[in-house]
Amino acid sequence: MEMEESFDAEGSFDDASCLSPQSPGSTSPARRQNKEIKETKITINCVTFPVSASAPEQQLLKPNEWSYCDYFWADKRDPQGATVTGFEVLLQKQLKGKQMQKEMAEFIRERIKIEEEYAKNLSKLSMFPMAAQEEGTIGEAWAQLKKSLADEAEVHLKFSSKLQSEVEKPLLTFRGDNFKKDMKKYDHHIADLRKQLVSRYAAVEKARKALADRQKDLEVKTQQLEIKLSNKTEEDIKKARRKSTQAGDDLMRCVDLYNQAQSKWFEEMVTTSLELERLEVERVETIQQLLRQYTTLRHETDMFNQSTMEPVDQLLQSVDPAKDRELWVKEHKTGDMRPVDMDI
Amino acid sequence: MEMEESFDAEGSFDDASCLSPQSPGSTSPARRQNKEIKETKITINCVTFPVSASAPEQQLLKPNEWSYCDYFWADKRDPQGATVTGFEVLLQKQLKGKQMQKEMAEFIRERIKIEEEYAKNLSKLSMFPMAAQEEGTIGEAWAQLKKSLADEAEVHLKFSSKLQSEVEKPLLTFRGDNFKKDMKKYDHHIADLRKQLVSRYAAVEKARKALADRQKDLEVKTQQLEIKLSNKTEEDIKKARRKSTQAGDDLMRCVDLYNQAQSKWFEEMVTTSLELERLEVERVETIQQLLRQYTTLRHETDMFNQSTMEPVDQLLQSVDPAKDRELWVKEHKTGDMRPVDMDI
Repeated sequence: MEMEESFDAEGSFDDASCLSPQSPGSTSPARRQNKEIKETKITINCVTFPVSASAPEQQLLKPNEWSYCDYFWADKRDPQGATVTGFEVLLQKQLKGKQMQKEMAEFIRERIKIEEEYAKNLSKLSMFPMAAQEEGTIGEAWAQLKKSLADEAEVHLKFSSKLQSEVEKPLLTFRGDNFKKDMKKYDHHIADLRKQLVSRYAAVEKARKALADRQKDLEVKTQQLEIKLSNKTEEDIKKARRKSTQAGDDLMRCVDLYNQAQSKWFEEMVTTSLELERLEVERVETIQQLLRQYTTLRHETDMFNQSTMEPVDQLLQSVDPAKDRELWVKEHKTGDMRPVDMDI
Repeated sequence: MEMEESFDAEGSFDDASCLSPQSPGSTSPARRQNKEIKETKITINCVTFPVSASAPEQQLLKPNEWSYCDYFWADKRDPQGATVTGFEVLLQKQLKGKQMQKEMAEFIRERIKIEEEYAKNLSKLSMFPMAAQEEGTIGEAWAQLKKSLADEAEVHLKFSSKLQSEVEKPLLTFRGDNFKKDMKKYDHHIADLRKQLVSRYAAVEKARKALADRQKDLEVKTQQLEIKLSNKTEEDIKKARRKSTQAGDDLMRCVDLYNQAQSKWFEEMVTTSLELERLEVERVETIQQLLRQYTTLRHETDMFNQSTMEPVDQLLQSVDPAKDRELWVKEHKTGDMRPVDMDI
């Protein structure tokens, strides 16, 4: 026994009869009186689910994995009240992931610009003539210190260049242009299968109503025969009975077609949601790898930067005031002959 | 015997008789004829030197040290033709040294500005909202990566702050304001001693001329007596002889005063040039130390900068797509009840 229940919805469900609200238990009064009805299934937005209290409990398809294929069967409402399928939630996650990559790449781009500015400033300063006249060992150390800024600039330019090629570019391109097309394909494919389900469900409802009508007709005609109310012959009753049976067959066929459509949709849901799950794992792992590349480049940069100090340290080590005096005195001395007393 | 030789010069030597060019050997013709004259000394700009060929060779006051006190006795010409004393060359070196410090401090100031700009840019970028919606373990790693830019900014601000207090400021202040005053004092003191020498030399020349006149007068008078040319008495000759002797004594006194002045100047030259030498050693050693401080700060900075990557690396290590899926699915799942076939 099924309980049909539905919600107002928009989009692909507009034309489905399962959308109009119906009170629970819309079976014929006769049946209601005859048995205690245990509703074990419920159809929501044309998808049929077991009622949660019914046994046996479903096992997850992929226990302990929090897999997409286990948790997105039902539709939900978004904050505006529109119906959103579980699959659309998964799809949105993937599209948002692409947006995240793009924003991360923008962030890296900004870092690149900062590094290039820094490098440019260091490079310019390294060429300023401050204290260019300093000579000797102290002059050499100073000159190397100034040059080291150009070396640092080089290091930062290399950093920014690698940031571009090894982090920014991959972030922008690892989901190619095909990604959005693929997502659209999945979207349309699954949506089409839901639409089919909706129309098959409409057919079931129509067949169910037709059967109810046929059954009522048969019942009325049988009652009339019994109380000899009309001149209906047994022939009429046989005809009514045949139509009723046919309507029952039709209903069976419609239900069967509905169940096939639902199974098809079910299979595609499992396959596609697992693909989206795989894509998400791939996205997270790729981002992890690219961000690790970022930290590696930062480590390298700091190390190369440190090494620009080596020649400066060496020359500072060699600073020798005595040697500098010798060099300077040799160049600038005016005379080593000392004055002597004048004779008369 | 001395040879007076002098050069055109400006400044403190304007009033000295030793400035007018004189041909070598300006002794009286009589003397020139009597002996072979060996010039062993020469006076240049009122300072008296041995002629280089004469023995014994002077030993340096401070052998193997290229000491200022050994090499700046003579004057020289600057490119414009003006006379510059050896001492002035030494003084200029010290004043230029102060200029060098100032320029080095300016260079450091420029570095400080570059670092502050870099820090500001990193700090701003760390607050940009790119990919702020990324969640789970990958979201945490990303958030930490962004934060690390603020940590880097902190490192560079600290660097620039220490550059200011430990390098720039000392470079600007280690020769205090008194330095220029001290240099002026030395300059005037030594220049005054040279001026004294110039006036003592003028006195010597004057006395020398006076003696020559007295001697000539005596000679003339003696000759006249011999040829009984005049009615000059022996009394006149005795007078002439007395004046001649007095002129000789005057000359001796003037030469003595000159030599005293020269000795005084000599002593001050040695003392002061050694002080300038000491100041130069101090200057070079101080600059060496401050530039070493610069390289130390650079080393530190690169190390601190590297350490900003540690928390990022840790969080990247912990990235777990499965965990992220669990977190996300728990929050966004729509329903775990799977569809079942519809019953009739």
